[in-house]
Parts: sequence; structure tokens; C-alpha cells
Amino acid sequence: MKEITAIIRINKMNETKKALIKAGISSFTASGRVLGRGKGQVHYDLLKGAAEGYEEAIEQLGNHAPRLVSKRYLVVVVNDNMLQPTIDAIISANQTGKPGDGKIFVSTIEDAVRVRTGETGSAILD
Amino acid sequence: MKEITAIIRINKMNETKKALIKAGISSFTASGRVLGRGKGQVHYDLLKGAAEGYEEAIEQLGNHAPRLVSKRYLVVVVNDNMLQPTIDAIISANQTGKPGDGKIFVSTIEDAVRVRTGETGSAILD
Amino acid sequence: MKEITAIIRINKMNETKKALIKAGISSFTASGRVLGRGKGQVHYDLLKGAAEGYEEAIEQLGNHAPRLVSKRYLVVVVNDNMLQPTIDAIISANQTGKPGDGKIFVSTIEDAVRVRTGETGSAILD
Repeated sequence: MKEITAIIRINKMNETKKALIKAGISSFTASGRVLGRGKGQVHYDLLKGAAEGYEEAIEQLGNHAPRLVSKRYLVVVVNDNMLQPTIDAIISANQTGKPGDGKIFVSTIEDAVRVRTGETGSAILD
Repeated sequence: MKEITAIIRINKMNETKKALIKAGISSFTASGRVLGRGKGQVHYDLLKGAAEGYEEAIEQLGNHAPRLVSKRYLVVVVNDNMLQPTIDAIISANQTGKPGDGKIFVSTIEDAVRVRTGETGSAILD
Repeated sequence: MKEITAIIRINKMNETKKALIKAGISSFTASGRVLGRGKGQVHYDLLKGAAEGYEEAIEQLGNHAPRLVSKRYLVVVVNDNMLQPTIDAIISANQTGKPGDGKIFVSTIEDAVRVRTGETGSAILD
């Protein structure tokens, strides 16, 4: 089993959910709000100011924590055969080609339990 | 070390915490609110409407994202010997036998650090 | 790739972000609020009352769920060579020597995808 965590734009959550459903992902999904920072998410004004040689902008770029950007995260737990379809669905809904489209991380889930029945293993995700 | 993530009903958090304490789980625990979707969490009215042949209900079932259900999540990090007792405690507090009881996921934590002392490894969870 | 999750004091987030930037961590970072419980995070009044033999305090210590403490969590995904520098940066910003400094957990990320380009692997974290 794999856990797929996607950090996406706030306004892309609905489209992403629809893409997952269309791809047949019926497994567990959770979502929430997070503050994220990726490379290069720096205010344009600061970059412009620094390029123009303003000391203040250069200092801010170098020493201060950049503002975190509000993002949505989505966690989907699926069986291994659904890993690539899930990634493809998330990309299809979120790829605009502009910085800030987000990132996807994959890790392994060793076991899963359905609380209602006590059943374990990958069958509970089918 | 294992990370146990449980997605449970909102009104079961207190009971779950008590069950964990009773089971001797003194390790790190975190909890929060999440929007979750499991299989079959679809509004009854929609299913009924679809069964009765209402086009609108059928369309909503097929093409639209089902509403996410508000859930609590609980993350517990324990040593390997406490994995099963933790799962048992969570099940005991959350099993009603009805859909929506939740799911539990298990993954591996490779290292842990106590910030106050810099100590690492499973000893910091005892 | 490693995922480093730190549970820290609420008022330490800014300092922690600055320490990460100073250490050259430009990879993905996310943060949020969580309710956490570590060992020993029990109200001092309860412990004092129990020590003095007050039945009520003893009962609360024994049978009731201790109040969860509000914490911030920070998730950083980095390449393996940045694991120790990231841990060091988090410790440097958060170690006061008093209980409640927090914990750090390390797990493995198997793959990462940059949504904008579809690129995968550790290169997207550099």
C-alpha cells in the first residue's frame, strides 16, 4: 500500500477530487489546509527590488523567512497498482505549468485496518 | 518505531484518548481535524433518488465529487511492541459496527529525536 | 529522500523557519497546528494536588485524558544528505532544555513529483 501526499493550490481541491473519482480511486482520502513553502516562492517585488540593487530587498531575501503560502494537502492511501493512476489524476487536475503547481510525495503504508470489522491488509482499500 | 494514524469519528476522540492512556500508551500523540472520504460515504438521499430513477440523483452520484465528511485524525508514534496494543485500543473505542467507524494506517518511523536533550532512538518513546 | 516531522512550541515556528533557511534547506516545508501530548505534560496543579493526597487530583491523573497541548508541526522533505543539517537546525531553534521542547520523527519518502513538469526523484528537492 502507498500513501500519496499532494500539496496543491487551494482552488484546485474540487477538480482534484473529481479527477480521482474519475480514475476510480475509491480508497481513503483526506484533505486539509497547510502553510507551505517551496523553492522560489518569494514575492516578486522582493526579487525585482534585489535585482535593482535595493539593499533592503537583498537583505530580506537573504536573512528573513519568506512568507509561507497557504496550500491544500491531500492524502490518498491506495494499493500499489493504483499508485501511478493516482499520481496521473493529481497531475492532470493541477498542472498549469506555472510555479506553485505543487508537489507529490510517495511513501509506504505497511498495514491498514478497517475499524468496523477489524479486517486488515490491502483488501480494505479495494 | 511505528506511526499509527487513525481516522475516526469526531465525537470519538475523547474516548479514544482514554483508551490509549488505559493501554499504557504514553508516547507522542497528535490529533487534528480532517476532511475524509471513504468508500460508500454517499448521501442516502442521493442513493435513494438514483434507485428511484431520478436523473438528477444519478448524475450527482456519477459525476460530482461526493461531499467530504469531517473526521478527526490521531497520530501515535510508539515502539514496535506497542503497535498491536495501540491498534486494539483504537478499535475498542471506535468500533460501532456501522460504516464510518474509520481506518487505521501503519508505517515505519526510522528515527526519533527528543529536542530537549538531543537523545535519539526508540528510548525516547518509553 | 527523508520526511522530517517536528512537533514544536507554537511560538518557535518563525525562529525554526529562519534556522532552516540559514542551513540552506530550500526544499518543501509545510506547517500547521496540532494538539499534542507527550509524556509528562500534565497540569502542575494536578500533580501537586495528587502529591498532597487530594482524591480529586489523583482520580483526574489516573482516569481522565490529560488535556492536549497546542503545538505546531513542521514537515520538511529533503534529500538524505540534508537530513542531519535539518535536524540540527530544528534543535538549534527549539532547544530550551525544558520539557515541551518537542520531538522530531524521521521517515522515508520513496518518490517525489513536481506537478508543474512531471519530473520525479530527488532532483526536484535540490
